Amino acid sequence: MVETVALLSAALVAVFYKERDGYYFLISAGITLLLGVSGILAGLKASPLIGRREGSLIVTFIWVVFTIFGLLPFWISGSIPSFTDAFFETISGFTTTGASILNNIEELSHSILYWRSLTHWIGGLGIIVISLALLPVFGVSGTQLFVAESAGPTKDKIHPKINETAKRLFLIYIILTASESILLRFGGMGWFDAICHSFGTVATGGFSTKQASVGYWDSPYIQYVIAIFMLMSGVNFSLYYFGFKNKFRKLFENEELKYYLITLLSFSIIVAVSLINFSEAFSFAKIELAWREAFFNVTACMTTTGFATADYMFWKTFTWVLLLIAMIIGASAGSTSGAIKMVRIVIVVKYCYYEIKKLVHPNAIIPVKYNGLIVKADVITRILAFVLLYLFTVAIGILILSMSGMGFQESIGGLITCLGGVGPGLGQVGPAGNFSAVPEFSKWFLSFIMLIGRLELFTVLVLFTPAFWRK
Amino acid sequence: MVETVALLSAALVAVFYKERDGYYFLISAGITLLLGVSGILAGLKASPLIGRREGSLIVTFIWVVFTIFGLLPFWISGSIPSFTDAFFETISGFTTTGASILNNIEELSHSILYWRSLTHWIGGLGIIVISLALLPVFGVSGTQLFVAESAGPTKDKIHPKINETAKRLFLIYIILTASESILLRFGGMGWFDAICHSFGTVATGGFSTKQASVGYWDSPYIQYVIAIFMLMSGVNFSLYYFGFKNKFRKLFENEELKYYLITLLSFSIIVAVSLINFSEAFSFAKIELAWREAFFNVTACMTTTGFATADYMFWKTFTWVLLLIAMIIGASAGSTSGAIKMVRIVIVVKYCYYEIKKLVHPNAIIPVKYNGLIVKADVITRILAFVLLYLFTVAIGILILSMSGMGFQESIGGLITCLGGVGPGLGQVGPAGNFSAVPEFSKWFLSFIMLIGRLELFTVLVLFTPAFWRK
Repeated sequence: MVETVALLSAALVAVFYKERDGYYFLISAGITLLLGVSGILAGLKASPLIGRREGSLIVTFIWVVFTIFGLLPFWISGSIPSFTDAFFETISGFTTTGASILNNIEELSHSILYWRSLTHWIGGLGIIVISLALLPVFGVSGTQLFVAESAGPTKDKIHPKINETAKRLFLIYIILTASESILLRFGGMGWFDAICHSFGTVATGGFSTKQASVGYWDSPYIQYVIAIFMLMSGVNFSLYYFGFKNKFRKLFENEELKYYLITLLSFSIIVAVSLINFSEAFSFAKIELAWREAFFNVTACMTTTGFATADYMFWKTFTWVLLLIAMIIGASAGSTSGAIKMVRIVIVVKYCYYEIKKLVHPNAIIPVKYNGLIVKADVITRILAFVLLYLFTVAIGILILSMSGMGFQESIGGLITCLGGVGPGLGQVGPAGNFSAVPEFSKWFLSFIMLIGRLELFTVLVLFTPAFWRK
Repeated sequence: MVETVALLSAALVAVFYKERDGYYFLISAGITLLLGVSGILAGLKASPLIGRREGSLIVTFIWVVFTIFGLLPFWISGSIPSFTDAFFETISGFTTTGASILNNIEELSHSILYWRSLTHWIGGLGIIVISLALLPVFGVSGTQLFVAESAGPTKDKIHPKINETAKRLFLIYIILTASESILLRFGGMGWFDAICHSFGTVATGGFSTKQASVGYWDSPYIQYVIAIFMLMSGVNFSLYYFGFKNKFRKLFENEELKYYLITLLSFSIIVAVSLINFSEAFSFAKIELAWREAFFNVTACMTTTGFATADYMFWKTFTWVLLLIAMIIGASAGSTSGAIKMVRIVIVVKYCYYEIKKLVHPNAIIPVKYNGLIVKADVITRILAFVLLYLFTVAIGILILSMSGMGFQESIGGLITCLGGVGPGLGQVGPAGNFSAVPEFSKWFLSFIMLIGRLELFTVLVLFTPAFWRK
């Protein structure tokens, strides 16, 4: 039902721009409505009891079903003739990745580009609601830490009722999108591009309406606005809620926010320095450009958005490594960003440091604290396991991609960018390239990788254990 | 004192081959003796109480001191004119890495080549004694698991007294070295090359007496003998002890051995298949060659030895990824091999799987078993932390290497190979290349990486915590 409404909104865009693609949106909406209604009717007969087991299945299923219906406009309109490509592009949208197989973006109709950006926005909203309202209820590994500042059982829920929480998050999401659209419009962008880019920013997606991504607009104002909104979309949304309630203390005391900003800014400064040519005469404009390019693209990678204003493949090699590390870290939990997320990195680093210290004081009990509270041992172990599983997925994924015929840089960059939900990788799949020339198998494999990355690995991987299917 | 004797043995080799380098060995032995005696005299006055804190310091110190004295023959003989290069080559020897800066190996004298291989042998012996006799006493992260089959507190020590254990391990080490030397001699290798290669094999080092490494000998017999002895040197040495005592049950029940062999063989088969050109006519000789190259080089990488019979840079790209993964996994704990080691991988993978299963059965207590016994929760957490710290070191190390001016492939390959104690990396530092052209800073950084990799990270890293130096 939700997707039918979304598809109809794209049909309205087609009407506004008098585009033929509107028919395809109506057909897609019709199919989605038909199967949606039959689904609901079938569902009414089934048991309404949803347990932990069904939770994983439903969440995974939602993303796949949205993708299958969502690819219809691309496919039947002929905008993306290959089914594989259409699937890849759509799941890349709903998982807020932004990896694309398109190399003719500017030839597509407004309604198709609007739909492409809207998939981001819907996916981002979905993940915010799931990670802040649903997952904590299921108690998925360490998600207790996401909602609130407490490290123990959630004392600080936004609202005890899932419905209420979801509504408040939706409001924050809309406010962010609307503010960015208006600010971009002020900067001289058209409403259409402003809204599409806001969809891509707030969802940390990264689909642009231009082949050159945000680099199309030479305006520093536009680039800074998008960069700052990317940065804001990488912040835990529950912190905005506390901000609105004037609980600013929670913002300033939040360790994840602190380390997220420190990491992002120090990475930006390192890259900016490497972009300055010190043998040339001093010029403020050059320093500003270096800083803007560094800040924009580091933020794009770390928040897992994936917009680009420059092709970092022409930068020094070490910046690739730095950007890949940023893509693996990701931004904050409870935001639309993907990857491991800063809270987990903070706890893992703290734990490793304490483990080293224990070598000197073997019997000392040194608790790991987060936001001033002691993190329970089993929560730590779960987070360690999550990060390890993430890194194992990176290693095995790179192996599988390289076996499927992709190059060394492409396999590394392509896997890390898709698992983290970023968009651009390295080499041919770098910021100036795309995934169109990637082998058919790799596209399906990367679609799977985007899905498990978006749903925090465990949610999907549990479906592959025999224990899940046993009665 | 130990090193003085070792240096004198190299002087004897020089006498045998009537080489001028013998003088340099005598000078080096003299300096080592002098400073060794003064060290002992100074030590006599100091407190003889060695705690956990001093343990880490002493172990790290031993490797550095051995390297500083061990580089003297290379340096003062002019075989390696640069101090940085001599340090790199020597620490690469003592850490049983085998990464080299030499591109004129065959021009060096017998005594210098003997000394180069002997550093491996001494380093390998040192690490076996430390990891099987010393570390378990200090209770370093998960080393309980190394000695015996039990996962709890060590019930199955080889011998309760460190001295006795060390003697038995020394015997096994000598038997392995001698058997390989004899078998290689039978295969037509000269005694000198046979002994030097046995030093490099049993220590999983990888220094060869030829520029083309083991590839110099075209004989399948020699290559298989070395491959099988590499494989054997990657087995936990305490298992040989149990084998001698007719406790074969312990061998067959050992999970680490099982997974080590399964991984090594399956990686070899995958690589072998990729090396066969199926469009050509069937030929047994070609299949044998593919298998031999695959088996030899996979074993060389996984046991962290680093001998080579082929330049895998000419193989399919995915084989690089597979070999890098093998280099990160490593062989068994309690062997001379480096890297993470199979026991830790087994426990981490099991734990991650159980963590996924817990999503379905949140209240079920699913213990992780190793060799049939339950692994305690704090041991698991320590192992998770070790593996994470290892992978973080990989990521940060690659970043630092690439910042120092090394290429993308070189940084990745160079870091993984040095941290794991393997030898060849990728690109210019691949099997056909060496580290001679690497920037000065990178050589020092990689020396540090070899050291921390060899000493299981924690032992060295603890020296960098303020807690260590606080009274």
